[in-house]
Amino acid sequence: MREFKRLTPYREALKLLLDDLSEIKETEEVPLEGALGRVLAEDVVSPIDSPPFDRSAVDGYALRAEDTFSAREYSPVELRVVDEIVAGEESKAKVEPGTAVKLMTGSKMPEGANAVLMQEMAEREGNVIRVLRPVAPGQNVAFAGEDVKKGKVILRKGQVLRPQDLALLKSIGFKTVKVKRRLRVGIIITGSELIEEFDEEALKSGKILESNSIMLKGLVRQYFGEPVFYGVVPDDENAVRRAIERAKAENDLVLVTGGSAFGDRDFAHRFANLLFHGTTIKPGRPIGYGERVFIMSGYPVAVFAQFHLYVKHALAKLVGARNYEVRVKATLTDRIPSQLGRHEFVKVWYENGRARPIRKKGSGIISSLVESNGYVEIPEDSEGHLEGEEVWVTLY
Amino acid sequence: MREFKRLTPYREALKLLLDDLSEIKETEEVPLEGALGRVLAEDVVSPIDSPPFDRSAVDGYALRAEDTFSAREYSPVELRVVDEIVAGEESKAKVEPGTAVKLMTGSKMPEGANAVLMQEMAEREGNVIRVLRPVAPGQNVAFAGEDVKKGKVILRKGQVLRPQDLALLKSIGFKTVKVKRRLRVGIIITGSELIEEFDEEALKSGKILESNSIMLKGLVRQYFGEPVFYGVVPDDENAVRRAIERAKAENDLVLVTGGSAFGDRDFAHRFANLLFHGTTIKPGRPIGYGERVFIMSGYPVAVFAQFHLYVKHALAKLVGARNYEVRVKATLTDRIPSQLGRHEFVKVWYENGRARPIRKKGSGIISSLVESNGYVEIPEDSEGHLEGEEVWVTLY
Repeated sequence: MREFKRLTPYREALKLLLDDLSEIKETEEVPLEGALGRVLAEDVVSPIDSPPFDRSAVDGYALRAEDTFSAREYSPVELRVVDEIVAGEESKAKVEPGTAVKLMTGSKMPEGANAVLMQEMAEREGNVIRVLRPVAPGQNVAFAGEDVKKGKVILRKGQVLRPQDLALLKSIGFKTVKVKRRLRVGIIITGSELIEEFDEEALKSGKILESNSIMLKGLVRQYFGEPVFYGVVPDDENAVRRAIERAKAENDLVLVTGGSAFGDRDFAHRFANLLFHGTTIKPGRPIGYGERVFIMSGYPVAVFAQFHLYVKHALAKLVGARNYEVRVKATLTDRIPSQLGRHEFVKVWYENGRARPIRKKGSGIISSLVESNGYVEIPEDSEGHLEGEEVWVTLY
Repeated sequence: MREFKRLTPYREALKLLLDDLSEIKETEEVPLEGALGRVLAEDVVSPIDSPPFDRSAVDGYALRAEDTFSAREYSPVELRVVDEIVAGEESKAKVEPGTAVKLMTGSKMPEGANAVLMQEMAEREGNVIRVLRPVAPGQNVAFAGEDVKKGKVILRKGQVLRPQDLALLKSIGFKTVKVKRRLRVGIIITGSELIEEFDEEALKSGKILESNSIMLKGLVRQYFGEPVFYGVVPDDENAVRRAIERAKAENDLVLVTGGSAFGDRDFAHRFANLLFHGTTIKPGRPIGYGERVFIMSGYPVAVFAQFHLYVKHALAKLVGARNYEVRVKATLTDRIPSQLGRHEFVKVWYENGRARPIRKKGSGIISSLVESNGYVEIPEDSEGHLEGEEVWVTLY
């Protein structure tokens, strides 16, 4: 009877894994438009003040706020318009007491003015405007550097770029941005019982349609990688060895499913020097890792848990990503019992602050993954949670 | 002095908008591998039981559980192995009392057997195995239909497809899946002060580098659409009219920034029959909508709020998507004051159950979007929240 001599505690295995990996160095300069979802390779320092000078935030009249302090609806203040410019131009006029300059959104504030009256708020007749209410100093003025100051770090290395990040980069003059290259992740599916394409006859005789590859490809794409699929490899020691060797040479990380336990055909773990093999996680206990190769389970639910508990963090470390997980607080609608000594991955359906545990058991039950949208981790020293308790849910 | 005659309350405007739109009919049949993130166009009913028959969930020995009930480490039960099959094959043997059949993961359970002993748990000598502990009936057996039952709805229309959904579809024989086509969303940026490319001289003289287009393109991509960009259009009534007419003809939805208020050059709103114009949201009040055209602000922060409060929901309705938002409960680290009569969009930084309001004011302050990852909505009848209160955060 062969078994794992020792199950490495979850956190210990995770540390061994992350200590073994270092961030890739290679970066790419990509156009802003292609950078959505990519990982920023370095801190970004603003080369300019933004706005570059005090400017009007609206279309309207630049004026001296002091001139308007006495304005009331029943006793308006009148100001003479001494210059008018169109959008994107600059007025050379100086705003003296009793005068105003008509300008547009983005116009440089003319000398002497310290506030802007919105055009819609002014009553105009000829070259005179009537101001009905006081305007506060600074009103409708965007001050130099109020969005971003020159020399300030505006985005940190490791940021997964979002639409608003790209907008900020564009607004301070960037056309491209330096991001980490996408990770290459090899995927090898082992098992002589597996077929890749639907075949009714084969299925009747005991073959199984494998579904780990499409799941792992999708997960890898969600976490900074491009999957490279090496196909389904039969339980032949040489074939598995060759596939792993080739995938190691061609990728940043390799995921092998099947062959992680100690059956007759579980030999995938022989082809990498494993830092750990067998951990306290459930499901997914017989995971092994070494030399940038993960030896994973063959069962989809176990593979999914192994991905989230280990592989996801490895990918984030390789690419230097921050904030790649969303953790939310939720109230349990039902209790979660857990076995001491296991780090359990419990699937839940999270919605509006409540988490409902998905009770279906069995590592082959893919529908339990479909019916869930997150997981609760229960560490080795806990016996679980009661109904109504608050827990942390990591969303997927 | 021109102003909005009436601000439509947020919920009322949202209802007018959603009632005006109907789900698109067009679908596409796409290979599973290209379906990640796409929206399922119809309920999926499983055409088969999965697994299709009772099968072994492990490599091991099929046996009669009853035979093992007396097994103890100090007094093992011996069973005779009457057949051995390799992965993906089927045994024709019948398991009689005192016998076992060696089989592999996925093998059909042989007649007479009701449980499987994991291979690693058996001590074998010749054609005899010694069982050291009782095996429970059903242990390591995957029963027919236990993952998915034939005829059952396994995925609902409107599901945004995830890696595990694709795995389930593949496991029951799907090669393709019917999804909604991507939405086409036209983007028009208006404003004579705007330039598309960095140009130091132009910027010094008061031009502004526009950043709404790249932000909207990214947001549209995140919410089921393909952006179609019509460029920056100067403040010329005919040019704006032509751009809007063309974009309306070519897209499911059109987003126009600038020209939503009532200044001299705010005429974009004239080219669509608006169902509402001016709502209680802050920032972003002067939004208008009609005939599948949004007339939005020119200021990035207002545009961003308008997108999340209105456009996102419109896109989800058009494509029939469910669960396109993540809402989490969070404790405020600081108070949020709010003005009665406004539906406020308050940016926050959410992390580990706590939400910190981002205080930077000003619709031009893109950095406030960059420093936040979600928002709190404060409806018209609320004066805000105190420090330490629990609020709902919608993540972005």
